[in-house]
Amino acid sequence: MINSLAYSPITRTPTSEDFSQTLLYRHLHTLLSKPSITPNDAGCQQYLAEQLVGLGFSCHQFTVNGVSNLVAKIGHGDKRIAFAGHTDVVPPGDLARWKHQAFTPTIDQGKIYARGIADMKGGIATMLHAFSRVKETLDLVNNQFFFLITSDEEGEADFGTKEIVAYLQQQQLMPHLCIVGEPTASEVTGDVIKVGRRGAISGDIVIQGKQGHVAYPHVAKNAAHGAAKLAYLLSELAWDEGSVDFPGSSLQVTSIDTGPWTDNIIPGSAKVSFNVRYSHKYHQETVEQRIKQIVDEMINDELTLSLTWQRPCIPYFTEKPNNNSISLITAAEQAIYQVCHRFPRLSTSGGTSDGRFLAQSGCQVIELGVPNKTIHQVNESVEIEDILVLDNIYQQLLLNLMA
Amino acid sequence: MINSLAYSPITRTPTSEDFSQTLLYRHLHTLLSKPSITPNDAGCQQYLAEQLVGLGFSCHQFTVNGVSNLVAKIGHGDKRIAFAGHTDVVPPGDLARWKHQAFTPTIDQGKIYARGIADMKGGIATMLHAFSRVKETLDLVNNQFFFLITSDEEGEADFGTKEIVAYLQQQQLMPHLCIVGEPTASEVTGDVIKVGRRGAISGDIVIQGKQGHVAYPHVAKNAAHGAAKLAYLLSELAWDEGSVDFPGSSLQVTSIDTGPWTDNIIPGSAKVSFNVRYSHKYHQETVEQRIKQIVDEMINDELTLSLTWQRPCIPYFTEKPNNNSISLITAAEQAIYQVCHRFPRLSTSGGTSDGRFLAQSGCQVIELGVPNKTIHQVNESVEIEDILVLDNIYQQLLLNLMA
Repeated sequence: MINSLAYSPITRTPTSEDFSQTLLYRHLHTLLSKPSITPNDAGCQQYLAEQLVGLGFSCHQFTVNGVSNLVAKIGHGDKRIAFAGHTDVVPPGDLARWKHQAFTPTIDQGKIYARGIADMKGGIATMLHAFSRVKETLDLVNNQFFFLITSDEEGEADFGTKEIVAYLQQQQLMPHLCIVGEPTASEVTGDVIKVGRRGAISGDIVIQGKQGHVAYPHVAKNAAHGAAKLAYLLSELAWDEGSVDFPGSSLQVTSIDTGPWTDNIIPGSAKVSFNVRYSHKYHQETVEQRIKQIVDEMINDELTLSLTWQRPCIPYFTEKPNNNSISLITAAEQAIYQVCHRFPRLSTSGGTSDGRFLAQSGCQVIELGVPNKTIHQVNESVEIEDILVLDNIYQQLLLNLMA
Repeated sequence: MINSLAYSPITRTPTSEDFSQTLLYRHLHTLLSKPSITPNDAGCQQYLAEQLVGLGFSCHQFTVNGVSNLVAKIGHGDKRIAFAGHTDVVPPGDLARWKHQAFTPTIDQGKIYARGIADMKGGIATMLHAFSRVKETLDLVNNQFFFLITSDEEGEADFGTKEIVAYLQQQQLMPHLCIVGEPTASEVTGDVIKVGRRGAISGDIVIQGKQGHVAYPHVAKNAAHGAAKLAYLLSELAWDEGSVDFPGSSLQVTSIDTGPWTDNIIPGSAKVSFNVRYSHKYHQETVEQRIKQIVDEMINDELTLSLTWQRPCIPYFTEKPNNNSISLITAAEQAIYQVCHRFPRLSTSGGTSDGRFLAQSGCQVIELGVPNKTIHQVNESVEIEDILVLDNIYQQLLLNLMA
C-alpha cells in the first residue's frame, strides 16, 4: 500500500476560503506572521517543535551566538532521512512598496504574499504538513526521520546548519538522505530541483604604492595603475564554461577602491575585491592558487600586494549512486512525475545554500521547493497551487523512499 | 650706473632682531597675518595698494565673483615689465601640527614660519620691497612697471589672473616681460627658475554596464571589468619621456570608483578619473584625441562609456628670443649669477601656475622665487636668507632690464 497516495490528489485549486481553513494554511500563517529576520527566529522554531512533538518527534533546540537551531527526530533503524530548512528571512526592504503587510500573510488572487513565503517558510510549513499527512504510512521501525531547522541561512551561516551537522556527527546521527526545502523552481513547483551548488569564495587584494602629486609621477607609485592591471588580469582568467543545467565557474570583480579622490593626487593604495563561483570541477585550493599566482607576479619594486580570503563556501554535488543504494534524486524525479506528469530539470545553479554543510559526510542532498522568482524582493509571493503541488510531491517522495 | 648694485649686498644673515626691524619684514608680517584663504584676500591687496600708491603707482582694484584683483602701474613708454603673484593661500590643515600659529608669522632659528611665506606672500613682499629699493634708479620714462595680484591662484583660477589679462588686453597694456614670484627654488633661492609649465587636463569616464548577482554573470555586464581594462589601457599609453629639466608627459589615473560594495553584486556602473600633464610638444586637442580613441574602442555591446573633460590648463613655454629683443631669461640668469655666483637650472616641472594666462599674448614669463619644499604643508617656512637673496635678485633683475 505504501506506493499508493495516502492523500487526496489535487483536482482543482481550492478557493481562497477553502485554503484558509486548512491545517497547511495555519502552519503558513503562524510562521509568516513572525518577523524572523536573520538571525532572529521570533518563535518560529518553538511553533515547529510543538507541532513535531505532537506528531511524536523528540526535539533538541539549542542556540549558538544568537542563532536558533532545532533538531527533531522520530523513528528507529539505520536509514536516516531529513528535511532541512531555515526559519530566518531577509529584511522586507521598502515597506511602502509592499501591496500587503510583509509580515501579515495575505491571500490575493490565488497567491499568498508575505516575506518568506518562497524563501522558505512555505517549504517548512509544507514539509511539516506533508509529513503529518503520510506519517501513518511510513516505516518508523527501520527509518529515522529528522527536521533540521536553523535561523541563520541568509546571514553568515556560521552558527546554523554547521552547528546542526556538528551535533548530528557527534551523536552519530548524520542523515543519509536530505531534502532541503529551498525555493528551486523556475516557473512552477517541480520544474527544477537542485542537486548541488557551486563553491564560492571572496577575496580582497590591497595594493600599496606611494602617494604623490600627479606632476611628479617618477617619485610616486600609482596604486590605481596596479589595481587596474590586477583587476584586468583577474577578469581575463579563463574558467570552465559550464552548460545550461550546470553553470561554469566565474570570477567577478566586485569593487575597485582607490580611496578619496583628489584631482592632482596619485593614489598610494587601492583595494580590489572579487568573488569566485566555481563548479565541482575545481577545489578551493586550486581556485586560490590561480589567483595567488597573478597576485605574486604583480609584486615588484613599485608595488606590494596582500591577498586575504573571505567567506569560503565549498561546492557540493549529489550524484545517483552507482551501487544498489537508494537514489534520492531518482525518488524525487519519480515523485514529481507521479504528481506533475513531468520530470524536473536537475540544476546546480544559483547562490550557495546550507546544502553544502549537509553534503559533507556523503549525505545525498537535493533541494526541492516552490518557484524562486520573487525571493528577496518586495511582494514576495507564491501561488497557492505551487504550495499544494509541493505538499503532494513531499508526501509522494516520502512514500517512494519507503519502497 | 644702472648696472651697479643700488643696495647693500648680503654680507651676513642678519640676526632675527635685525631682520624684524626691517621694512621687508613689516611687509611680510602684515601680509602673513591676514588669513587670506582662497578666494578671500583678507585685506592683503589693500595693504599692497597703499604701499604702491606711496611709491607713485596708480592702482585699479576690482572684484569678480568674490575674487580680488589688483593692477598697479607706474611709468611711461612702450616696454612693459610686470611682477605677478597671488595673495591667497591654501588652508593651514591640522592646526595642532603647527609649531607656531599659522597666521602669526614667527621667526625661529633663522626661518620665518607662516602659511603663505613660501607660496607666495614671501615673493610678493619681496618684489614690493625690491622695487622700492631700486625705484630711483629705474627709467620710468621709457618703461612701465606693473604689479598684477590676484586672490585666486590656489582655487579654480577662473576669475583671477585670467580677468587681469582680459583687463590689460582691453587697455592695450599687456606686459612684454613678466616675473611671477612663485616658489621655484629647490634647495636655495636662485637654484631653479621656471620658464614654462606643462599643460594639464583632467577627465572622467563613466562606464555603464548592467548590475547583477555574481552567481549569474551571463545576465549582467560587469562595469568594474570595463573600468579595470580602461584604466589599464590608459596607464599603458606612451608619452614623451622628457629630461631632467623638462619633464615629459604623463597620464595618471587618480581614481577608480565602482560604487558601494556588496560581496555578491556585480557593479553596474563605474567611474575612472585621470589627469594628464603634457609638455609643449602636445596640443590639448592631441591629448584629448589619444584618450578618446581608447574610450571609443572600449564601447561595445556590453558597455557604454562617456567621457567628460575637466579643468584644462594649457601649457606655456618661454624661450630666449632669436631677434635682438631683450631676453627675460638671460636677464634673470645674469642677476642670479651676480648675486649668487651661480647659474640657475631652467625648469618647466611642477604643477600649473598663473604664468599660463600671462604667456598667452607672447609675453615672456619666468617664475622665480624662494624654495618650495614646505608649500601646502604644515609648518610652511622659509629661511630669512632665502628671502634676502630673492630681494637682491629682484633688485638686480630690474637693473639688468634697464641695460
